[in-house]
Amino acid sequence: MRGSSRIPAAAIAAVALVAAAPPPEPVTPRAVLATAPAGDWAPIAPEDLLLIDLEGGVRVAIALAPAFAPVHIANIRTLARAGWFDGLAIDRVDDGYVTQWGDIDGTKPLPAGVTKPAPAEYERPDRGLAVSPLPFRDAFALRVGYVGPFAVGAEGGQAWLAHCYGSVGSGRDGNPDTGTGAELYAVIGHSPRQLDRNIAGVGRVVEGMPYLTALPRGTGEMGFYAKPAERTRIVREVIAADLPAAERPAYQYLRPDSASFAAWLRVKANRRDDFYLRPAGAVDLCGALPPVRRAAAAP
Amino acid sequence: MRGSSRIPAAAIAAVALVAAAPPPEPVTPRAVLATAPAGDWAPIAPEDLLLIDLEGGVRVAIALAPAFAPVHIANIRTLARAGWFDGLAIDRVDDGYVTQWGDIDGTKPLPAGVTKPAPAEYERPDRGLAVSPLPFRDAFALRVGYVGPFAVGAEGGQAWLAHCYGSVGSGRDGNPDTGTGAELYAVIGHSPRQLDRNIAGVGRVVEGMPYLTALPRGTGEMGFYAKPAERTRIVREVIAADLPAAERPAYQYLRPDSASFAAWLRVKANRRDDFYLRPAGAVDLCGALPPVRRAAAAP
Repeated sequence: MRGSSRIPAAAIAAVALVAAAPPPEPVTPRAVLATAPAGDWAPIAPEDLLLIDLEGGVRVAIALAPAFAPVHIANIRTLARAGWFDGLAIDRVDDGYVTQWGDIDGTKPLPAGVTKPAPAEYERPDRGLAVSPLPFRDAFALRVGYVGPFAVGAEGGQAWLAHCYGSVGSGRDGNPDTGTGAELYAVIGHSPRQLDRNIAGVGRVVEGMPYLTALPRGTGEMGFYAKPAERTRIVREVIAADLPAAERPAYQYLRPDSASFAAWLRVKANRRDDFYLRPAGAVDLCGALPPVRRAAAAP
Repeated sequence: MRGSSRIPAAAIAAVALVAAAPPPEPVTPRAVLATAPAGDWAPIAPEDLLLIDLEGGVRVAIALAPAFAPVHIANIRTLARAGWFDGLAIDRVDDGYVTQWGDIDGTKPLPAGVTKPAPAEYERPDRGLAVSPLPFRDAFALRVGYVGPFAVGAEGGQAWLAHCYGSVGSGRDGNPDTGTGAELYAVIGHSPRQLDRNIAGVGRVVEGMPYLTALPRGTGEMGFYAKPAERTRIVREVIAADLPAAERPAYQYLRPDSASFAAWLRVKANRRDDFYLRPAGAVDLCGALPPVRRAAAAP
């Protein structure tokens, strides 16, 4: 009698059924995004979308954060609508730190309506602000999380935009409270969180980072270009809302208060798919920015 | 009687003295480095310094970490000495993530002596390893700090090289334990710490990061170049020890167990100089890599 004959037929059928079932799909962050219901995505309002057309026919898109820097954002809209940025340039590319553009030397007269924010918009009260928490340790803030597509730190009743890769802020002089939005920078290296609360964050690049990161580094002090010929010219800065609807690019972000975002965080923190052997057990604030995607049509 | 006449002369003199004294020099991280005694700097051994000469006459210098990945480092030395890397190329520039080079498709025969490390050198026992601790929270490891010029995580009796901006690791296939050092990558974005312990760290770029970061981004899958013509050619990879002494570049790092490093960390975490209004009260692991400088002569 062969040993196998002692296994009841029903058990053999059950084993065969299990063996025939495909292995469970590896759950990747990408797979979570692909199955997120439409309602877990939210549009970036065209009024909050700054488009920078650079020489060479390329474009950088920046989501603006009026909940954190309303005066700066109003200024940026005023400057864009006046065509004020057009013809200015990227003047500074400081490796591992920032790419900077606009009125670097502060000599171009500003249009009417551009004001210096007071207070300086480095932070805001956290009252009334729904921060979706990131449940992991952070070196810089007791509470961290996300508001819309933005990474946020919070402590002591205040909240602020965190400086992450791709974050955009408003340049200023050594003197505080000198920024208006006429000089902007984007982070191109390890997230410089020490800048948090020392300068006004205004938004986040949502498309076109390579056009800010793959530029030659400046060889002057602090990464400024030594020669004007090295600069990259800004053809136009425009608010998406000011374009004809058919020409507007549209973006959506995964709502940080959605079930899909929570699942995406869990999977990112506990990767066992593909390449990963040992899940990190955590993600850090700047390593888990809410995903952004192009939308089919303007919202 | 004027009010001032009621102040004793000695007190007036003391006040004048205070007023005449120059304000205390702002203490910047840079100032700490400038005054660090020679003994707080340590040389990077020429045997642990990999030089990559790229087309265009530019060079990237990488400090290797044999204490963490001895078999990988032995392989890298063997490959460099065989001229094996020469004529290969940078094949992948994935924005915000890594620049990668070497034998990407794994088809070039390896010279004798190159072996697959076992165990895979993703981590090592922390026994006997002096980790200079960073006294701030970290999302990924219970203990973080520095060993030589390298950022390190440690937990559960193991220690590993952390993935920071500029970190260099050994590429591998999806299968674990497939890396040898013949395919290398450098981190060019926010520090991807989730890779820690999932792949072997081998070192850190100490000079020439812009030659890895300012390259056009690859438009293929995962940032690989779609066309071979887009690649950047490796003219030569050489271990500094193999160059004539007069041609060897020499570097020193600030010893993480030195008083100067401790002071530098304190100042970085509590900046009140120049630009900063609100000290962060902390630094994060990848934001405080031990400073590296060119030395006058080979050590």
